[in-house]
Amino acid sequence: MSTQKKQTSLKHRLHEIIYEADTPSGKLFDVVLLIAILASILFVMLESVQSINDTYGDLLNIAEWVITILFSIEYVLRIISINKPWKYIFSFYGIIDLLSTIPKYVSLILVGSHNLAALRALRLLRVFRILKLARYIGESNRLLLALRASRAKIAVFLFFVLILCIILGTVMYMVEGAENGFTSIPRSVYWAIVTLTTVGYGDIAPGTPLGQLIASVIMILGYAIIAIPTGIVSSEMVRAKIHTNTQACPNCLKENHQDGAVFCYHCGHELNE
Amino acid sequence: MSTQKKQTSLKHRLHEIIYEADTPSGKLFDVVLLIAILASILFVMLESVQSINDTYGDLLNIAEWVITILFSIEYVLRIISINKPWKYIFSFYGIIDLLSTIPKYVSLILVGSHNLAALRALRLLRVFRILKLARYIGESNRLLLALRASRAKIAVFLFFVLILCIILGTVMYMVEGAENGFTSIPRSVYWAIVTLTTVGYGDIAPGTPLGQLIASVIMILGYAIIAIPTGIVSSEMVRAKIHTNTQACPNCLKENHQDGAVFCYHCGHELNE
Amino acid sequence: MSTQKKQTSLKHRLHEIIYEADTPSGKLFDVVLLIAILASILFVMLESVQSINDTYGDLLNIAEWVITILFSIEYVLRIISINKPWKYIFSFYGIIDLLSTIPKYVSLILVGSHNLAALRALRLLRVFRILKLARYIGESNRLLLALRASRAKIAVFLFFVLILCIILGTVMYMVEGAENGFTSIPRSVYWAIVTLTTVGYGDIAPGTPLGQLIASVIMILGYAIIAIPTGIVSSEMVRAKIHTNTQACPNCLKENHQDGAVFCYHCGHELNE
Amino acid sequence: MSTQKKQTSLKHRLHEIIYEADTPSGKLFDVVLLIAILASILFVMLESVQSINDTYGDLLNIAEWVITILFSIEYVLRIISINKPWKYIFSFYGIIDLLSTIPKYVSLILVGSHNLAALRALRLLRVFRILKLARYIGESNRLLLALRASRAKIAVFLFFVLILCIILGTVMYMVEGAENGFTSIPRSVYWAIVTLTTVGYGDIAPGTPLGQLIASVIMILGYAIIAIPTGIVSSEMVRAKIHTNTQACPNCLKENHQDGAVFCYHCGHELNE
Repeated sequence: MSTQKKQTSLKHRLHEIIYEADTPSGKLFDVVLLIAILASILFVMLESVQSINDTYGDLLNIAEWVITILFSIEYVLRIISINKPWKYIFSFYGIIDLLSTIPKYVSLILVGSHNLAALRALRLLRVFRILKLARYIGESNRLLLALRASRAKIAVFLFFVLILCIILGTVMYMVEGAENGFTSIPRSVYWAIVTLTTVGYGDIAPGTPLGQLIASVIMILGYAIIAIPTGIVSSEMVRAKIHTNTQACPNCLKENHQDGAVFCYHCGHELNE
Repeated sequence: MSTQKKQTSLKHRLHEIIYEADTPSGKLFDVVLLIAILASILFVMLESVQSINDTYGDLLNIAEWVITILFSIEYVLRIISINKPWKYIFSFYGIIDLLSTIPKYVSLILVGSHNLAALRALRLLRVFRILKLARYIGESNRLLLALRASRAKIAVFLFFVLILCIILGTVMYMVEGAENGFTSIPRSVYWAIVTLTTVGYGDIAPGTPLGQLIASVIMILGYAIIAIPTGIVSSEMVRAKIHTNTQACPNCLKENHQDGAVFCYHCGHELNE
Repeated sequence: MSTQKKQTSLKHRLHEIIYEADTPSGKLFDVVLLIAILASILFVMLESVQSINDTYGDLLNIAEWVITILFSIEYVLRIISINKPWKYIFSFYGIIDLLSTIPKYVSLILVGSHNLAALRALRLLRVFRILKLARYIGESNRLLLALRASRAKIAVFLFFVLILCIILGTVMYMVEGAENGFTSIPRSVYWAIVTLTTVGYGDIAPGTPLGQLIASVIMILGYAIIAIPTGIVSSEMVRAKIHTNTQACPNCLKENHQDGAVFCYHCGHELNE
Repeated sequence: MSTQKKQTSLKHRLHEIIYEADTPSGKLFDVVLLIAILASILFVMLESVQSINDTYGDLLNIAEWVITILFSIEYVLRIISINKPWKYIFSFYGIIDLLSTIPKYVSLILVGSHNLAALRALRLLRVFRILKLARYIGESNRLLLALRASRAKIAVFLFFVLILCIILGTVMYMVEGAENGFTSIPRSVYWAIVTLTTVGYGDIAPGTPLGQLIASVIMILGYAIIAIPTGIVSSEMVRAKIHTNTQACPNCLKENHQDGAVFCYHCGHELNE
């Protein structure tokens, strides 16, 4: 029974360190974790640079294994120290933690897959929790809300853009042809997307006067329709800013009171909370 | 008379399947149609890729013919099953359906024209109807309304942009000349459009210091004036959001009352809540 | 005296034709003028294309001379038929009309200057007057008002962007050096503008890792700060939409009445116009 | 004592000339200073152009030394003429003034560092003070306020963009590989930033069909999410426009009352108009 108690206490202590950021040890754990994540991303990046890999390849490999094993231990501890392990395992962060750890193991069998360890970048999202930036979390939530509200409109917009690019790409394929780099319809559609989004690599560019005329139309179109998603999100955010108080004055029924108002701005009657 | 009745019943049944999406058979028809459209677009795209066409060209050709014949049958059935065939034939979808079917037939006479079958992409717009996404249709209608309201402003804006590009293109043609790729005024105007819209292919780029100075001005101009269409659409959408009061005055039937209005702004009659 | 009267009448008739667009003859004049402007721009453009100039050069030259002489006659008639000629000569359209006519004459002395005839594109602005699109003129006026209101903010913004580009360009010149195309500070500043405005020709592109890192920062900066001019113009336009009625109710002093409101929306009292 | 008095008077006089722009001599000083700054930036730029440096190198070098010495004298005078020299030295303008002066001296030891004199561009910010454009300063303050209010949201947004670019860059590195220019993960991340921000140099461009598909997704993503910073800043600015009521409650001193408010929203006390 004493052993069980000790176990419970240990589990509790672990939970405190790993999942909470209020205690000094919990905070230390989170900061160390963040540094380890940043280091591991840096290592994967550096290893991919040929010249660095030739010189420091073995060192980087060892460093990555050390971090991978540390992450594995952390993952196991996270599962052990929580009461409902499955809830963590299938949570957003649980899945990311797993995906961040396995690529290095898989690389033993499948060469090259360790690059997927760059997925660890997603773990950086923890920074919001670690720094206890409740304000930042609030901000990102408000951002997400505004985006969610405009989701349907944005989807409709992107759907139109895609159909437009398919048709314009096909037209350009017929106008320009393979000799100007428009070797197939998919490639022409790719070009149409590059042009409409105003990216404009220049790896494929229209060569015939007619092609350049059509390209000009596409560009001006792209320049004008970028106003649409912007308008959607802007109006959604403006609305979120304006209508944040849904109170009505019990005396004069006036609405549109300011956030945190206690009295009606028109008749001075006290407002219900 | 019994035959006539049967015909009417058959016609009614066809109408139900083809034009309605409420019954199981109607829904099934729509989903099959959507898959066929997607497949046909994919086939046209793949056929344009040289390497794929060399290997699977015959197969793709047969598949396209099968789908074209199916689309032709569908088109005929649509005309037969409706009471006012001309209304369908000259409707937006009727014209698209026809344009989606004929390119393959034309390709028997005119080589290459079958690529126009990519116009079938427009048929994908049916997806909104099929998925019964009334919400999405509502959203796209609201989008279109906001765009329609800002149509005149956008037209004026694009007209100015075009005049600007003609003048700037001519100036650059005189400054840079043929040796830097500005071989003619139309080509220079094309370059000005590429630059002002911030696409920037780089197929033509200024080489002289004066040309680069002018190009810099054009770029900063383009960077600044993109704010104009965005501002137009945003303000239009914000306005659409703010005026959400759907009351009509019980006395004079005026609409567009302000949020929280108690009396009609036109005749002074009290409004119903 | 009779001759003087006839002259006055002729002058009056000319004024009616040239300056007014209400009478059939005035309208005809304007439409012919617009076609002549479009044709002349087309001729100048086509002449600059080498292959077309080789074949049709003489024809185009004659056509341009015909139009230039017609424009000259029009210009003289405009001066004659108006009571205050200087007012026209120094007006916006007066200066444009002159600038559109002289390049062809100057080209007799200065070869190449006839390309400046592309300034005729500015004459196209008359289209608004000709088509009597009062609505379009109203729209463009409102556009100009919103832009004028945000002029100071936009100027401050562009000033900061320019200083930023000078400093970033210099840093890149020191980091990348001549071997990567950053041959001088002005050229590097040009590159910084190309990058910050997200044009991105690719004629100059960073080659060193440090240069690419700085370039990434510039790009993300440019991606983020484009929000500033957009936000300025949007908010200006939204404000223009919202505050269009400056009435105050004479009874309850409520403001923010709807456009065209006759009665106060709050107390029902009649509003002063 | 008389000497001390004279010194004080001289100091006072210097302060008037250097720090104030109201007196004629103060204004003259500021205008001369501005011209000197512009000239010095021009000299540094011209010196970096090989062909100009070959011919006028010595002249430019002398001119730069003259300006540097003048700036040094000005810096010393600024310190002498002020009562709290440290406050100036560690102020924004104080640090810029120092940084603008030392690069030329450092260039005696460290070749090439004189290019940092381009930091003098920052001194141009004084133009606002010199031209006494209180209005412009007000505008830029309002701009900064709106930006500060949206700082947290913009930070969250850029953080997401960066994580996105790291992951997308890694995926592209694995898909495209070194043969298509994606030689390392950092380089691929650089490409992802170039693409997402719609800059699109074209120095690196996807070559494989799968790579082009992913690139298309990134571009459309970049095209859509540019709406986010724009929406943030727009809504912030619109809000700044709407809440222009500068009343403070005479009872509880609460600010931010609604336009047209009669009673304090917080304590119910009547507001002064």
